Amino acid sequence: MQNKTEASGLIRALPHIRALRGKTLVVKYGGSAMINAELKKAVVDDIVFIAAVGIRVVLVHGGGPEIDAMLKATGKEIRFVDGLRYTDEETMDIVQMVLCGKVSKDICALIQGAGAQAMGLCGLDGGLLEAVRVKTADLGLVGDIRRVNRDFLEKALDSGSIPVISSVAMGTGEDAGKSLNVNADTAAAVIAAALTAEKLVLVTDVRGILRNVLEPESLISTVSRRELDELREAGVLSKGMIPKSECCALALDGGVKKAHIIDGRIPHSLLTELFTDEGIGTLITV
Amino acid sequence: MQNKTEASGLIRALPHIRALRGKTLVVKYGGSAMINAELKKAVVDDIVFIAAVGIRVVLVHGGGPEIDAMLKATGKEIRFVDGLRYTDEETMDIVQMVLCGKVSKDICALIQGAGAQAMGLCGLDGGLLEAVRVKTADLGLVGDIRRVNRDFLEKALDSGSIPVISSVAMGTGEDAGKSLNVNADTAAAVIAAALTAEKLVLVTDVRGILRNVLEPESLISTVSRRELDELREAGVLSKGMIPKSECCALALDGGVKKAHIIDGRIPHSLLTELFTDEGIGTLITV
Amino acid sequence: MQNKTEASGLIRALPHIRALRGKTLVVKYGGSAMINAELKKAVVDDIVFIAAVGIRVVLVHGGGPEIDAMLKATGKEIRFVDGLRYTDEETMDIVQMVLCGKVSKDICALIQGAGAQAMGLCGLDGGLLEAVRVKTADLGLVGDIRRVNRDFLEKALDSGSIPVISSVAMGTGEDAGKSLNVNADTAAAVIAAALTAEKLVLVTDVRGILRNVLEPESLISTVSRRELDELREAGVLSKGMIPKSECCALALDGGVKKAHIIDGRIPHSLLTELFTDEGIGTLITV
Amino acid sequence: MQNKTEASGLIRALPHIRALRGKTLVVKYGGSAMINAELKKAVVDDIVFIAAVGIRVVLVHGGGPEIDAMLKATGKEIRFVDGLRYTDEETMDIVQMVLCGKVSKDICALIQGAGAQAMGLCGLDGGLLEAVRVKTADLGLVGDIRRVNRDFLEKALDSGSIPVISSVAMGTGEDAGKSLNVNADTAAAVIAAALTAEKLVLVTDVRGILRNVLEPESLISTVSRRELDELREAGVLSKGMIPKSECCALALDGGVKKAHIIDGRIPHSLLTELFTDEGIGTLITV
Amino acid sequence: MQNKTEASGLIRALPHIRALRGKTLVVKYGGSAMINAELKKAVVDDIVFIAAVGIRVVLVHGGGPEIDAMLKATGKEIRFVDGLRYTDEETMDIVQMVLCGKVSKDICALIQGAGAQAMGLCGLDGGLLEAVRVKTADLGLVGDIRRVNRDFLEKALDSGSIPVISSVAMGTGEDAGKSLNVNADTAAAVIAAALTAEKLVLVTDVRGILRNVLEPESLISTVSRRELDELREAGVLSKGMIPKSECCALALDGGVKKAHIIDGRIPHSLLTELFTDEGIGTLITV
Amino acid sequence: MQNKTEASGLIRALPHIRALRGKTLVVKYGGSAMINAELKKAVVDDIVFIAAVGIRVVLVHGGGPEIDAMLKATGKEIRFVDGLRYTDEETMDIVQMVLCGKVSKDICALIQGAGAQAMGLCGLDGGLLEAVRVKTADLGLVGDIRRVNRDFLEKALDSGSIPVISSVAMGTGEDAGKSLNVNADTAAAVIAAALTAEKLVLVTDVRGILRNVLEPESLISTVSRRELDELREAGVLSKGMIPKSECCALALDGGVKKAHIIDGRIPHSLLTELFTDEGIGTLITV
Repeated sequence: MQNKTEASGLIRALPHIRALRGKTLVVKYGGSAMINAELKKAVVDDIVFIAAVGIRVVLVHGGGPEIDAMLKATGKEIRFVDGLRYTDEETMDIVQMVLCGKVSKDICALIQGAGAQAMGLCGLDGGLLEAVRVKTADLGLVGDIRRVNRDFLEKALDSGSIPVISSVAMGTGEDAGKSLNVNADTAAAVIAAALTAEKLVLVTDVRGILRNVLEPESLISTVSRRELDELREAGVLSKGMIPKSECCALALDGGVKKAHIIDGRIPHSLLTELFTDEGIGTLITV
Repeated sequence: MQNKTEASGLIRALPHIRALRGKTLVVKYGGSAMINAELKKAVVDDIVFIAAVGIRVVLVHGGGPEIDAMLKATGKEIRFVDGLRYTDEETMDIVQMVLCGKVSKDICALIQGAGAQAMGLCGLDGGLLEAVRVKTADLGLVGDIRRVNRDFLEKALDSGSIPVISSVAMGTGEDAGKSLNVNADTAAAVIAAALTAEKLVLVTDVRGILRNVLEPESLISTVSRRELDELREAGVLSKGMIPKSECCALALDGGVKKAHIIDGRIPHSLLTELFTDEGIGTLITV
Repeated sequence: MQNKTEASGLIRALPHIRALRGKTLVVKYGGSAMINAELKKAVVDDIVFIAAVGIRVVLVHGGGPEIDAMLKATGKEIRFVDGLRYTDEETMDIVQMVLCGKVSKDICALIQGAGAQAMGLCGLDGGLLEAVRVKTADLGLVGDIRRVNRDFLEKALDSGSIPVISSVAMGTGEDAGKSLNVNADTAAAVIAAALTAEKLVLVTDVRGILRNVLEPESLISTVSRRELDELREAGVLSKGMIPKSECCALALDGGVKKAHIIDGRIPHSLLTELFTDEGIGTLITV
Repeated sequence: MQNKTEASGLIRALPHIRALRGKTLVVKYGGSAMINAELKKAVVDDIVFIAAVGIRVVLVHGGGPEIDAMLKATGKEIRFVDGLRYTDEETMDIVQMVLCGKVSKDICALIQGAGAQAMGLCGLDGGLLEAVRVKTADLGLVGDIRRVNRDFLEKALDSGSIPVISSVAMGTGEDAGKSLNVNADTAAAVIAAALTAEKLVLVTDVRGILRNVLEPESLISTVSRRELDELREAGVLSKGMIPKSECCALALDGGVKKAHIIDGRIPHSLLTELFTDEGIGTLITV
Repeated sequence: MQNKTEASGLIRALPHIRALRGKTLVVKYGGSAMINAELKKAVVDDIVFIAAVGIRVVLVHGGGPEIDAMLKATGKEIRFVDGLRYTDEETMDIVQMVLCGKVSKDICALIQGAGAQAMGLCGLDGGLLEAVRVKTADLGLVGDIRRVNRDFLEKALDSGSIPVISSVAMGTGEDAGKSLNVNADTAAAVIAAALTAEKLVLVTDVRGILRNVLEPESLISTVSRRELDELREAGVLSKGMIPKSECCALALDGGVKKAHIIDGRIPHSLLTELFTDEGIGTLITV
Repeated sequence: MQNKTEASGLIRALPHIRALRGKTLVVKYGGSAMINAELKKAVVDDIVFIAAVGIRVVLVHGGGPEIDAMLKATGKEIRFVDGLRYTDEETMDIVQMVLCGKVSKDICALIQGAGAQAMGLCGLDGGLLEAVRVKTADLGLVGDIRRVNRDFLEKALDSGSIPVISSVAMGTGEDAGKSLNVNADTAAAVIAAALTAEKLVLVTDVRGILRNVLEPESLISTVSRRELDELREAGVLSKGMIPKSECCALALDGGVKKAHIIDGRIPHSLLTELFTDEGIGTLITV
């Protein structure tokens, strides 16, 4: 009776699918789900399903480990400042090559192989992301996004493609003509806001927001934008969760309806979060 | 872990959904699935799911028991000739009222309630079905469809509606100005051919085509158009299955890609047949 | 020289046609004009002419006598409360069958036969009319319209069809899943307002508004919305004219530009009212 | 009861209007109907009516008397060769000025005043008419049309305008850069063929084709293309009718469905011919 | 190395072309550039280039000398009042014939010959220009434009044509049914404002605005709207320049971004002004 | 008078621009013009000009030197077999990273900076290029293109972007899931044929086809497809020219109208070849 169960699953998924059809969904994809081949396959399958039922999906990807590997292969030193990658010109070249040339295009190939249409873009395509250099610390060619070319992205979506976006931006002002390295989580949030997306989903290596970081059962299923601030002030958020939750807040403040933090280590966590009543991670509402 | 199973079900449904997106599906809906409230709900849910994932779906419905009930209520005799309803003018009025006014519109209300858009049409709307009187027997106002207004139906589908069609046709020639009663299974087949539909699905009260009518396990999962003729000649097809299989043949000969005979007594048999690898009834291929 | 007169007639009709081309016209069609075959033919011809010259026309029909006949045929008691039909579930079933299945579809067949395209709709199609149960009296399943699905109706008009609408609505709230009987004149007025129609025309069994109900020559050709109130307060309006004039007021208050009350007993009164300078009934202006 | 008669006239006009809606009609307008102010007004009203009911109408006009008057005013000799105007460069300048600058634009102003949209074009606009010089006789700058820019004209019609066309063409080959004078009747026929028009109507100063030119009652209401040839060979056609009938033949041979020769001296002869069953002039069918 | 220079010229033209692509440009064309055949050819080439690179261009033309010539040819007196042509009915007829029938259509033929599409229009086509009679002086049929049919003009541009507009307007009010003579410079300015054009360019017989009318080297390359007023108040503007500069001011006040006064006596001054960095005449900015 | 010369250059460019507007042009860009910064700027300016005047332009780029540099940086051996790069998996990774991540995206950034819209694509995006492994020699992951996704590319062009394409293809069959290295010249030819482009232009490091490879003055300006074969058979073509000319032949045989071989070492050779009468390299016609 496996079949009947599946049909019931489809029916239960229906209201969720219907609520998102024609809407825009921005997924930030990184961590284990990008390294483990099986999990990668599951995420790609999820993305293809989401697109197949008529949801406009934008994928923003990370790629730290691949960058580190390539830096090592070229004998280049890896340097972090306050947890952020110091990016000199040579490093920027490697970052761009790895993200835009390898990671993004390989994901496109996987999506194409699974039957949907994908397009590997970065901030240099269509002037998609314009940025200025970060001023708060000397990080080299690291930038903050100032403008998203929404129209360009909408056209890519209209043409039936899933944009697979690398977090490399066009420098402006003093850095005109240079590429700038931008944080992928933030890029996803800013893009979601620019598209007034229905949802931003961060695929991470944690269960979601936990009330007690040591107890996975303490997962908070739903939290409002305001409660999120209270949790942070109360010191409940773990060190790694703080920037994630700030990205979600950034998206919500920019007009995105809902943000999700889910665990990419669980196969099909994306579909489960989006298309079942219970969900699987943490949902942050306005 | 119910959720994870459901997500897997969605993923397994994906290739089937993708293969049908943007295509047209004609479903003939009758029998138990129209009488039992729970089964009715399940069929409507299935139809709404099918439409929600972007498949163009046309529903053709039956309604024999409702017609009989109304004929009885008005004290009108029920008369069959060789298994076909004799339809005098008064009977035709009742047939039209019950099918077009009650059954079709009630299905529309159910579909609307489940969140999709439906439109109750019959052969009189937009001259959708034109027919001439059957010559082979004296059955009164019973007709054979001669023309389907494909353009009218495509526009209804384009506008996002699920047409819910009653098998009442416009008389032409000598019967111009009169309504004619047409067989609903045949109407579904003829409409499917006119739309060059991807699939015709007959929702029935049997499991499908059985090699031995007494053994449900003898279900034939897949059969070609040619093998179907052989089965009939070999006397394998039951008396009730012969007209069903002729409808399927009619559709396939008219350009429909595939025809399905499924069991409406099993909840969600429609989704199970369409969106699982194994299916649940009999698939007839070209 | 009949021909020359006719050509002159066309020329005199021109400014009226031009003023209405591309605009929307809602016609409530009932009374004698629906029963007498010759008058019926004349109304259908008028409607087809109106559509043929490029005016968007919506027809809302009545059907009291047909409902009564069917109730009698099934041995069901006919019951009125304060002049309004008491509608229990069985009655509602008959009302729906007669209006949606017989009257509406037969008018469609006539319009199709006269060369235009028609579509028989009711409040259940596309959730066109949503209603709540009337609270002022216990009338059973009788409702007041709360919402019109304008978009659905505009699409039907855009696709080149004349919607022929039965006054049966979808129940909401406590009556979700049930059909509700709504007054056809009111339905026409509410639909006209929802479409911001150019005109609402009520085809009735009287000449129009008479200053003295006993003298047909006392017909008031034009009256403003405000004067209408004064006439009612002065007791000039006959008992039957009061609800008619309230419908007109409802439409005008909802944004309709003009309302007409005309005599369906005069052949082609519709064309005469719309396309001649003098008109034939009563015009109510803002 | 004038009003009722008019409404009946509209109804009788309906099948004719419906048959022509969305179709293209080319009218050649000349003779008395262009000189007498009242007749001019009637023709313009007819044209505006035809456009108002959704028929695509193209007007080709003459202007011999106006040209003669202007030639006289400038002291220029008027010269005819075998009934055709000899056109030297100065004459061509006058012809172009009078037709394109005065007659065409004044008709546009009248049409605009009557509420439709008109556009005064000639063969020089959009390269609408390309011609070569007539070789059969030395007529100076007189041309035969070789190409019609159908696409340009269709766009003018699509934009809702009535093109009012002067019979001045662009010279090609040796006459590139020069204007050529072309016969207006022939221009109308060639344009009608280029547009595969439904009808060509020649508005003339005669009743139509008469069996006996002295007896108006001998009007031939309908004649086929082949019978027309027989009439000419039998010498029945008057001298003035021969070129008119050749124009009609040219149009029919080029794919136009029907050609009409009507009497512009009768007010509203255009509407009467097109929208009454009997018509008023001669209809030539394929 | 001529070729390489040309390629460099194209590259230098690029930013100017790009800035104007898809924008609207209104050119008033008159004076020597309309009389000298070589200059005429150069202007037409410029116009065709401008259209070819995707700029929407509207041409408004003058024609004083041609009108005078025709008035003389017909023995009609030429009369000016305060430098403005007194226009009685006969004069108006000549003005209309010459401008709309000769000048406009001949320019169309030239443009067509050079490979672009042109359409000769005046204020009577599509009711493009509506005017009332000038009240300040008795000038006969001379008018001030009150309304421009923007929609009609935009459709002509959308259809790929270059409108070539004669300054003849439809009279309204007391002058309904009459043509009125309007100033061509003013017509260009009013049309530019109605279209919210990017630029208005006046092609004249002077170098531009000169600081000292006797020294061509004193050309003012750029001047703001406010400085223009100051120049006039300071008496710097020559008598002929005052109305030109008022037209530019009228356009700028009506929303046009920039106005140019250039010298039509210099071949290709139009392209040089628009597509080189230095320009050639006077640019007036907001 | 520099300005006037430039304006004349624009006018002379006009017929060439007009002939290509709306047509598709595929440019293969490689060699010195990709390495020298000034030449690079000139090519980008040319491309932006071409797009700005309404020509649909597709850029296919090379990148051998950049690949070699990166291989060296990672200590990877560079290996050629019969002049073709042997491509093992690690090399393929580097090829993809350099071409898709660095070269393509940097060109996009330059084009964006110059004011047009660009999109860096490769064969993995939208399944743009599908290939099978070359069988003629063991070259590792080197492929021959079997299919181009024309529709995907047309949509990118329709959306106003200049596709900047890296010659990396999706493997199919046994190599499904792998990237394959394809020759960029051939990719350009195959893409031009798939788009039925008007022109293919190869930007090279030679003057064009020389009759005597030692004498630049022996440049052949125009040669037909058939003459090209004769030149090769006669041994006139240099070793490096043979594959270039084969690419041109491949494109012409596939329906491309014209092929050009030009010298990228001359600034603006692209514009000079396309938009001047004399051209600058070799044109190969059908």
